[in-house]
Amino acid sequence: MIGYGFMGAAHSVGWRQAPAVFDLPLGVEMAVVVGRNADAVAQAAAHWGWTESATDWRSVIARDDIDIVDIVTPGDSHAEIAIAALDAGKHVLCEKPLANSVAEAEAMLAAATRASERGVKAMVGFTYRRVPAVTFLRDLIAQGVVGTVQQVRAAYRQDWLVDPQMPLAWRLQKEHAGSGALGDIGAHIIDMTQFVTGQQVEAVSGTVETIVKQRPLLGSGSGLAGVAAEGYGDVTVDDAAIFTGRLTGGALVSFEATRFATGRKNALTIEVSGDQGALAFDLEDLNSLQFYDRREPADRQGFTKILVTEAQHPYVGAWWPAGHMLGYEHGFVHQVVDFVGTLVDGTDPHPNFAEGLSVQRVLAAVEESAAQNSAWVPTGARAHE
Amino acid sequence: MIGYGFMGAAHSVGWRQAPAVFDLPLGVEMAVVVGRNADAVAQAAAHWGWTESATDWRSVIARDDIDIVDIVTPGDSHAEIAIAALDAGKHVLCEKPLANSVAEAEAMLAAATRASERGVKAMVGFTYRRVPAVTFLRDLIAQGVVGTVQQVRAAYRQDWLVDPQMPLAWRLQKEHAGSGALGDIGAHIIDMTQFVTGQQVEAVSGTVETIVKQRPLLGSGSGLAGVAAEGYGDVTVDDAAIFTGRLTGGALVSFEATRFATGRKNALTIEVSGDQGALAFDLEDLNSLQFYDRREPADRQGFTKILVTEAQHPYVGAWWPAGHMLGYEHGFVHQVVDFVGTLVDGTDPHPNFAEGLSVQRVLAAVEESAAQNSAWVPTGARAHE
Amino acid sequence: MIGYGFMGAAHSVGWRQAPAVFDLPLGVEMAVVVGRNADAVAQAAAHWGWTESATDWRSVIARDDIDIVDIVTPGDSHAEIAIAALDAGKHVLCEKPLANSVAEAEAMLAAATRASERGVKAMVGFTYRRVPAVTFLRDLIAQGVVGTVQQVRAAYRQDWLVDPQMPLAWRLQKEHAGSGALGDIGAHIIDMTQFVTGQQVEAVSGTVETIVKQRPLLGSGSGLAGVAAEGYGDVTVDDAAIFTGRLTGGALVSFEATRFATGRKNALTIEVSGDQGALAFDLEDLNSLQFYDRREPADRQGFTKILVTEAQHPYVGAWWPAGHMLGYEHGFVHQVVDFVGTLVDGTDPHPNFAEGLSVQRVLAAVEESAAQNSAWVPTGARAHE
Amino acid sequence: MIGYGFMGAAHSVGWRQAPAVFDLPLGVEMAVVVGRNADAVAQAAAHWGWTESATDWRSVIARDDIDIVDIVTPGDSHAEIAIAALDAGKHVLCEKPLANSVAEAEAMLAAATRASERGVKAMVGFTYRRVPAVTFLRDLIAQGVVGTVQQVRAAYRQDWLVDPQMPLAWRLQKEHAGSGALGDIGAHIIDMTQFVTGQQVEAVSGTVETIVKQRPLLGSGSGLAGVAAEGYGDVTVDDAAIFTGRLTGGALVSFEATRFATGRKNALTIEVSGDQGALAFDLEDLNSLQFYDRREPADRQGFTKILVTEAQHPYVGAWWPAGHMLGYEHGFVHQVVDFVGTLVDGTDPHPNFAEGLSVQRVLAAVEESAAQNSAWVPTGARAHE
Repeated sequence: MIGYGFMGAAHSVGWRQAPAVFDLPLGVEMAVVVGRNADAVAQAAAHWGWTESATDWRSVIARDDIDIVDIVTPGDSHAEIAIAALDAGKHVLCEKPLANSVAEAEAMLAAATRASERGVKAMVGFTYRRVPAVTFLRDLIAQGVVGTVQQVRAAYRQDWLVDPQMPLAWRLQKEHAGSGALGDIGAHIIDMTQFVTGQQVEAVSGTVETIVKQRPLLGSGSGLAGVAAEGYGDVTVDDAAIFTGRLTGGALVSFEATRFATGRKNALTIEVSGDQGALAFDLEDLNSLQFYDRREPADRQGFTKILVTEAQHPYVGAWWPAGHMLGYEHGFVHQVVDFVGTLVDGTDPHPNFAEGLSVQRVLAAVEESAAQNSAWVPTGARAHE
Repeated sequence: MIGYGFMGAAHSVGWRQAPAVFDLPLGVEMAVVVGRNADAVAQAAAHWGWTESATDWRSVIARDDIDIVDIVTPGDSHAEIAIAALDAGKHVLCEKPLANSVAEAEAMLAAATRASERGVKAMVGFTYRRVPAVTFLRDLIAQGVVGTVQQVRAAYRQDWLVDPQMPLAWRLQKEHAGSGALGDIGAHIIDMTQFVTGQQVEAVSGTVETIVKQRPLLGSGSGLAGVAAEGYGDVTVDDAAIFTGRLTGGALVSFEATRFATGRKNALTIEVSGDQGALAFDLEDLNSLQFYDRREPADRQGFTKILVTEAQHPYVGAWWPAGHMLGYEHGFVHQVVDFVGTLVDGTDPHPNFAEGLSVQRVLAAVEESAAQNSAWVPTGARAHE
Repeated sequence: MIGYGFMGAAHSVGWRQAPAVFDLPLGVEMAVVVGRNADAVAQAAAHWGWTESATDWRSVIARDDIDIVDIVTPGDSHAEIAIAALDAGKHVLCEKPLANSVAEAEAMLAAATRASERGVKAMVGFTYRRVPAVTFLRDLIAQGVVGTVQQVRAAYRQDWLVDPQMPLAWRLQKEHAGSGALGDIGAHIIDMTQFVTGQQVEAVSGTVETIVKQRPLLGSGSGLAGVAAEGYGDVTVDDAAIFTGRLTGGALVSFEATRFATGRKNALTIEVSGDQGALAFDLEDLNSLQFYDRREPADRQGFTKILVTEAQHPYVGAWWPAGHMLGYEHGFVHQVVDFVGTLVDGTDPHPNFAEGLSVQRVLAAVEESAAQNSAWVPTGARAHE
Repeated sequence: MIGYGFMGAAHSVGWRQAPAVFDLPLGVEMAVVVGRNADAVAQAAAHWGWTESATDWRSVIARDDIDIVDIVTPGDSHAEIAIAALDAGKHVLCEKPLANSVAEAEAMLAAATRASERGVKAMVGFTYRRVPAVTFLRDLIAQGVVGTVQQVRAAYRQDWLVDPQMPLAWRLQKEHAGSGALGDIGAHIIDMTQFVTGQQVEAVSGTVETIVKQRPLLGSGSGLAGVAAEGYGDVTVDDAAIFTGRLTGGALVSFEATRFATGRKNALTIEVSGDQGALAFDLEDLNSLQFYDRREPADRQGFTKILVTEAQHPYVGAWWPAGHMLGYEHGFVHQVVDFVGTLVDGTDPHPNFAEGLSVQRVLAAVEESAAQNSAWVPTGARAHE
C-alpha cells in the first residue's frame, strides 16, 4: 500500500476484515506500507497490522513477493505510481479520482490495457458502489423496476469548509488536488450516477465557485485536524460545483457538489426517476434505500424504505442478521472481496480504469463549461461507449 | 372572484375562513364569482358560498359595490383583467404567476403603480410565503440566525406528468400557460428564495426540457382529472427546468422544477446555508422546519425539527394548540388576512406586482439562457433593486 | 351547539366548511350557540358565523327549528344535555369522551336507543377516525392486508403539563374532567385501536400516575393559555397512564397516554402488526401512513410511506390534488359530512353511543386495575359484542 | 473465546479491530477458540484469525498463557464457565444476559467479587452501551441536560418469529435460553434504561405471551438460517413481553420486547423525558440521537438530530471524519477497548456482574409478575443500590 493517510486507514480495514468475514478464494497478506516519513509510516504499518514499512515505492514495486499495489496517495502521484506498478506486472487498486487530469488518466488506461493482456488487473476505488444499498439499487434498475430513466438528481453536500479558519490543506491546492469539491466529492456522484444507471454522462453545463478565497496557511496536521500557521494563502480549487448533465440515454441529471452545505456532514444523495418507478439513496442513512413503484395500486403507492440488511442483499449474507447495520468502512471490505475475486475468476474488476477515465472526462468538461460561461461541453462519452 | 377552477376553490376557502378564524379589521362579503359558463359558475358560486355569479367580468368590475377583485383565471388573462380592475379602482389579488410574459407583467406593474397613488392595492398570490413555517423561516434569516447566506438549494418536484397518457391540458400549451413546470412551479421556488433571503436572483444559467413531446388531446375534464380524446397534440411547454441562479448578495442557488420526479407529489424543498447556520423546509412536511445552528457546542449541533405550531409562530395563534397541524389551504386564509389588513393599515401588500414582475424576469431569463446553450443571462435585478 | 371553547371553534369549522367543500344531501344552517356568559357566547357566535346565541340550553333544545344538537361542553355535562336533547327528538353529536363515568354513558346509550326508534341519531366525536389516513388504515385492515392482528402498539404523548407552573385548569380536576391524560387522550387511542382493528378491548392491566401533584390555582384564561393565581391546589387526575389490553381477537395492545413526554406535542401513534403485514400512523405526520407487506419479495420489503392525498383515498377527492396536505380541523369537516349523511340515508352514525360507552368501560377498567395493583380487569366487552 | 456462533463472529471483529484502530495500552493476541465440534471450531478459528482451536474449555482455562476468557455460548453454560475461569484467575468477558436465572447470576457475582480481590476483572457484554450515540446520551443525562427524569419509554421490536414456520431453535426452548424475547432483547432495554438514567428498576408489572405456541422441529442450521425437520414441538419461552417499571428515582418506564413487530428488524428505541428536556435513540438509526431542550426559546424548540460522528463524541475520534457512519459491530470493538483498558488502569469494567445481576433480577420479577396476574413485584433494587 502506497500512502498512509485517512484512506490508508480505511483500506487497511478492508484488507484486514475481508479474509476474516468473507470466504476469499485466495489468501491475502498485508505486506508493506510505503510513505516518505520513515518513522510515521513504520508506526502506521505496525498499528494497522502490516508486516513492513518502506520509504521508496519504486523498490517495493520491484519486489517479486508483492502481487498487489494499493495506491492511496494524493491524486498528483496516482499516474506515476500506477503506471509503474502495472508495467511491473502488479495488480493495482487506485484510490479515486483516478488522476488529476484527463491526460494522466488516459496514460493510466493505456498502461492498464497493456497490463490486461498479461492478466494484470487495475481497479479504481469508488467504494460507494459497494455499499450494499447502492449495489442493490443498481441491480433493481438493471432489472427494470423503474423502467426508462427520465431524470436523475445527485448531490454530495458537506460542510467542512464553512469555517473560514479551516487551514489551506493539500486538498485546497490545485497542484496537489486537481480540483476541490468537484474532483473530490463530485467524482463520487458522477461515478455513482453512471454506475447505477448503466449510462454515461455525455455532456455537461456547469458552474464552479470558490466561496472563501483565502485561508490560513497550514501549520501542522492534515485534513479536518489541520492547525493553522500564520499568514494566508489563496484557495486555488473550487468549494462548490453545480452542474447539469445529459446521460447517453437522454435523461437530464442535476448535480451538486459542495463543502458549504452547513450542517450536512456527508450527504451524498441520489434519486433516479423512471417512467415506472423511482429509487433514492442517502449516504447518511446508508443501510436503506427508497423505492417507489408505479405498478402498485394507485392508493398504495409510496416510497418504501427497504432496509438493505437481509441475507439476500449484496454482500450482507457474510455479515450480521437483518437490521444489524453496516457502516462506512464496509465498502472498503467489499472492494477487497471483489478485487481479489477477479484475480482468480478471470473477470475484469469494476470500476476499471476506463470507468475512472470517464469520470475524469466529465470533471474536465465541467471545468471547461464553467470557464465558458456554462456552455454545454461534450465529454466524448458517446465516442467512448 | 374571476375564475372558478382549482384556485377558485382554494381562494374561496380563504375568503370564507379568514373572518371566522382571525379578527379582521373590516368585514368581508363573498359577492360574485365570474365565469364564462353561466350554469357552471352559478353552481360553483352557490357551493362555495358566494352570493351571486356572473359571466361578464367587465360589468362586475364596473359595479360600485365591489371593492376587491380576486383573479384566479389562467395566466393569459391576468394582465387584461388586473389592469382593468386596478384602473377601475378595485383592489386586486392576482394568482401567480403574475403574467405569461415580462411585457404583460410590466404593464400590470404600471397599472398597480398608478392605482397605488389612489390608495388602491395590488398583490400576487404566492401563498406558500404564508405557510407559517416559511414565514418563520424568513423571520429567522432576517434575524441573522444563519449569518451570511452562502448557498441555496431549491426544488419543486411533482410527478403528475410521468404518465404519458395524461392529456394535453391548458397548462401544457404555451399560448395559455406561458411555460410549463418552469412558470407554474418554478415560479414558486424563485419567489420563495427571494422572499426568505430578502435578495433577488440577478442572473441565471439554465436548461429546460420537454420529456414527453406529444400527448393525447383533452376530451373533457381538466387538470389531473382530464379525460383523453382521440388523437395527439404537441406539448409546447417544458416538463422540467434545471437552473442555477446568483443572488444579489452573491450566493449561488441550484433550482430544479420538474413534473417527472416519479413518486414526488408536491415536493417543494428549500435549504438556505449560511456561515452561521442553515434552515430547510419541505412542503410535504409543511408544519415544520429544520434549523441548524453552528453557534451550538460542536457535539450538540444538528438539524432541529421545529414544529411551527406554537402560538408564538406566525398566524398560528388564531388556530389550534401546539402540535395540531395546518394544511395546504391555510396559506389562502392567511393571504386574505394579510391582504385585507393592508386595506386598513395603509401599508403595501406583499408580494406586490413589482415582486411578481421580478419572478417573471427570472423565468424569462431562464428561457433565454436555455435558448442560448445555457449561457448566463442577467435578470436586471440589480437595476431594479 | 352547546359550548364554545376550543372544541366549539373546531366544530364550527366543520359546520362551515362541510357544505362548501362536499356535496351534502341536505342544507345545514348554523343556528345557535349556547353558553353561560351571554356576552362571550354572543361574540363567539358572531365570529364563527352562527346566526344567534343563547344562554339557556334547555330552551334551545325545546325549539322546533333546531334539528341537531352539537355538544362541546366539558364531560360532566354531556349526559344531562345529550339525554334531554335526544328525548326532545334532536339528533345529537357529542364530543368525546362520551361521559365522565360508565353509569352516565349507559344512561346516554339508553336514551340513544330510545331515540333511535324514532329515527333520531346519536354520534360521538372521535374525529381522529376521520383523518383520511386513519380511515384508510382501517379499510386496509378490513381488506386483510395485514392478515391476523397479532400485536398493537398505541400511544398518545403530549408535553403540555411538563411545566409545573401550568395552572390547575378544569381538565386537571376530577369532578369536571373525570380523568386526566387517560380520559382525554387515552380515550382517543382506545377508540382508534377498536376502530381500526374492528375488535374490542376485553381486559386491561394498567398504572396511572400523577407526576406533578400540586399546581398553581387558575386565575384567568383556560387550557394552555391559563394564567396562574396565587396559591396551589391538588391535581386530582392522572398525568400519565400506561396500560396493556387484550383484544377480543386475542392480541395484546400496549397503550400509553401521557402529558409528560417532553417535546412531543400531539404524538398519537399506532402500529398494528399482523401475520401478513403491518400498518402504522402518526398524528404529527397525519397525511400519510406506513404499510409493510410481508407478501412482497423478501429483498424488497419495507415500510411504504403512503401519502393519503390521492382522489381515491377516503374524503380526499373533495379537497385538493395529490400531495396537498390536510390538517387537524379536516376531521371535524368529515365528521359533519358523515353525520349529516346518516340523517338522510337511514344508516347509523359511527362511532355511536354504544361505541362511546365501550371506550368508557375500558377507561373505567384501567382505573380499577390501577387501584388493584395492576391486576387484569375485564371490560365486559365480550358480553357486549 | 468459548463459543463460536453469531456472537463469536462479532466478538472476533472486536478483538481484531480494536488494536488496529485504537491505541490499546497492551497487546492483544487472539489465541484459542473453543467449541464442541472440532472441525467446525477449527474452521471458525482459522477464518476469524485465531491462532488455535480446542474442544475442552476446562483445559484452555487451565493454560498459563491465557489471560482473558471471552464467553459467547448460550446462556445455560455462562455460570459454570465464568465461575471456573474467574476462579482460575482469568479476566472474564461474558456475553449477555449474564445467566439464565438469578441464582446463577448471584453465584457468578460472588465469583467475580472473590476474583476482584486478586485484581481479576469481570464484565458483561451489553455492547449497545458502547454505541457512541448511547454513551453520549448517557453523558448528556449525567450532565443534567434533561433535568429530572420523569418518564422513560423503551422498546425492542423485531419480527423474526412472525413466520410460524421458523423452526424451534435453542432460543425458543426454556432450558437453553431461560426466556424468549424477554431475556434476549428485553434484557438490552432494561440494561440500557439503567445505564443511561443511572438508576435502577425497583419494581415491575408485566405480561408475557407466547403467540405461536408450536413450531417445526429444527432440522439443521441455527438462528435465522435454521431449516425445519418433520414434526412440531412446543415453544416454551415468551414471544413478547410488555411491562411497566418504576425507577429508583420514581419515574415510570414503559417496556416492550417483542419478536412479532412485523417489519421491525432491530428496532431498539428509547426515549427519556425530563423536566428540562428529552433524549431519544433508535438502533436502526444508530449514528444519531434526538435531543429536545426546553431551555431554548419557545419558538425554536424541537428535536435536534445530532449526528454522533464528531471527533468530540465517545469512541468516534479513532474512526472516520464526521458523517462517516459506524455500524453494529463497532460496539464490540469499543467493548474490547474499554475492557482491555481496565486491565491496565485499575478501574472496574462496566457493566460488571452486579449490573448483569440487576438485569437478571428485573427479568425474574417480570416473569413473576406475569405469573401473578401482573401484580407489581419488587426487584430488590433499593436494597442493592
